[in-house]
Amino acid sequence: MRELLKVTSRPEIISFAGGLPAAELFPVTRVKSALTAVLDRVGGQALQYSTTEGLPALRDWLAAQFSNGRLRVDRENVLITTGGQQALDLVGRILLEKGDRVMLENPTYLALLSAWRPARVEFLPVKCDADGMKLEEGELLLKRKPKVVYCVPNFQNPQGTTLSLSRRERLVALARQHAIAIIEDNPYGQLRYSGSALPNLLELDARNRGTTDFDSRVIYCGTFSKVLMPGLRVGWVIASRAVIEKLTQAKQAADLHTSTLSQHLALELISRGFLEEFLPVLRRNYGERRDAMLGALAKYFPKSATWTQPEGGMFLLVTLPKHINASKLLLAALEQLVAFVPGEEFHLNGEGKNTLRLNFSNARPERIEGGIKKLGRLLQLKE
Amino acid sequence: MRELLKVTSRPEIISFAGGLPAAELFPVTRVKSALTAVLDRVGGQALQYSTTEGLPALRDWLAAQFSNGRLRVDRENVLITTGGQQALDLVGRILLEKGDRVMLENPTYLALLSAWRPARVEFLPVKCDADGMKLEEGELLLKRKPKVVYCVPNFQNPQGTTLSLSRRERLVALARQHAIAIIEDNPYGQLRYSGSALPNLLELDARNRGTTDFDSRVIYCGTFSKVLMPGLRVGWVIASRAVIEKLTQAKQAADLHTSTLSQHLALELISRGFLEEFLPVLRRNYGERRDAMLGALAKYFPKSATWTQPEGGMFLLVTLPKHINASKLLLAALEQLVAFVPGEEFHLNGEGKNTLRLNFSNARPERIEGGIKKLGRLLQLKE
Repeated sequence: MRELLKVTSRPEIISFAGGLPAAELFPVTRVKSALTAVLDRVGGQALQYSTTEGLPALRDWLAAQFSNGRLRVDRENVLITTGGQQALDLVGRILLEKGDRVMLENPTYLALLSAWRPARVEFLPVKCDADGMKLEEGELLLKRKPKVVYCVPNFQNPQGTTLSLSRRERLVALARQHAIAIIEDNPYGQLRYSGSALPNLLELDARNRGTTDFDSRVIYCGTFSKVLMPGLRVGWVIASRAVIEKLTQAKQAADLHTSTLSQHLALELISRGFLEEFLPVLRRNYGERRDAMLGALAKYFPKSATWTQPEGGMFLLVTLPKHINASKLLLAALEQLVAFVPGEEFHLNGEGKNTLRLNFSNARPERIEGGIKKLGRLLQLKE
Repeated sequence: MRELLKVTSRPEIISFAGGLPAAELFPVTRVKSALTAVLDRVGGQALQYSTTEGLPALRDWLAAQFSNGRLRVDRENVLITTGGQQALDLVGRILLEKGDRVMLENPTYLALLSAWRPARVEFLPVKCDADGMKLEEGELLLKRKPKVVYCVPNFQNPQGTTLSLSRRERLVALARQHAIAIIEDNPYGQLRYSGSALPNLLELDARNRGTTDFDSRVIYCGTFSKVLMPGLRVGWVIASRAVIEKLTQAKQAADLHTSTLSQHLALELISRGFLEEFLPVLRRNYGERRDAMLGALAKYFPKSATWTQPEGGMFLLVTLPKHINASKLLLAALEQLVAFVPGEEFHLNGEGKNTLRLNFSNARPERIEGGIKKLGRLLQLKE
């Protein structure tokens, strides 16, 4: 897939393949002035080694964001990571050993599989529907004693679907009852274009215990990649102090600390209130693009195809009739200068050969319409 | 040690403890203009996701730096990492399995041990003298079939010593003969204040084979942390294509890629010729500081103490009489507002309890003199 993404970065290709934010929306001028402000104020220390845990002010800001009447998050519950991917990698390193079982959505985030496979864990895939992971199937897997549940509750990659409130509550209760850790991976949660926000698993777990202390079974992974800019590589983990301490030791061995300059830049932008300004811009633009894609799919795709209806995020998943192989379709699509990722990549057990993951955040609406039209024509030929 | 470094970052303390460059020398104004130039020229792409391997132009620049008549390094031989620490971590991930043996200097770089210990390897420590690793002892260890030799040939951390040319040649020959990989970790090589530069193991390996092709047993790890600024977290690996491909897969799982903005900033500075300007400044300043420390040690330390004579880098190692415990000395020193790291931390087999690692790059000469004077007085009391 890394190789595929290289081809699809050529500008003549309409790419639904990557998971790229729209770079033309990045506030380059604001970034320039924020960097100048940081260097004027902090000086050489903004370019110096810094602590493994991350900048204290950035950790405090995140702790405040996640704290509310039912959950108190302190600085010591926060670790800054080199993007969300490192959060997942470090969690795997401290939690998982050979033979451990991991329950997860099928299909799931591809790079989670690459990060955790070297630990030689066993994945227990759970089928999904429009409300996310089918927990009634997951419950059958509990007798196989999973150590960890990995879950992307909001606008999951690759499906774009969201775990319903009742399933969230059930999942948190089951994890507590069976002493399973929940890895809540939430890169897209703030990118909601319709429907109503649902509480995080982290928060539900605190509510269930009727306490404000932080002693959660949930390890929450977040990132600025989708709401600010991914090129900074700034993510974070929120977890109990004991987990954060172990993760910090693992992070020190992995890369000492996250770029000091990137952290200062993120902090400068968010503490000037930039997210309140920028998130509505992202939501408006990506929401339009999602609508453009859903509209074009309805218009150009054959009746035999179905697709998910994401309320946010960056992706949706199309399911074609069983006889159509998405990898072969991709070869034909590339000739027409359109790209996507075959959904099989994200599936365990060799499923999903007739599915495609489509990204709708990177291309403008008119390019989306053009690309879907071309794909639709190819599919009509296969009918 | 991480906890210790937190205490010692208080400004009233004269710290010989960290491995920090001198932040007051960082070219903040140049960095500001370089960042503005990058954002003007590259725009939002400087803040976007980028390839796991690193920016092509940065890889090309590094390949050219390491290429010469006897060695040809191509872009495909270079991987950009999140600082030198990640280079070591990734190398461990792709090369080492439980029970593998690693031959290394004793004492050695502490964070290498933390990075590779989780793989449950066995370390084979080799004694050192003023010319680095005592290879005649290393040869005795060859019958235990080490898979890897880890070596910091220039101004080693913590000793500040340099591997002699004859030992370099012998090490490269032995590695080839016994099919051992050499991990050459060279963060300090360009910080030489006296004596003459010696060829890298990477280069010697190419010479020995009488070929210009790149098919080395040497995996070379470098970083901009000590010659530019560590807060960027930009390092690199130079190795055969096969090794770089494996490392790239491991890096993708670890953090997707290194900060795009940090890479662009490093590239902008070096391609404007900034290193040619900045390295002499660093060498002059750190050289003065090294001389200040060596002078103060001769003046204030008791005759019973000995220390290494580094020709470059950031550290030297003091050996005290056997009956003095450096950890206890540290407690007394902290009361006098002076800090260092007990050398025991860097030793395997519980050796080095009577040694101290002193950093000379971070404090100004007059502070160095003052700090060494205080330590000397404490030691005179213990005579």
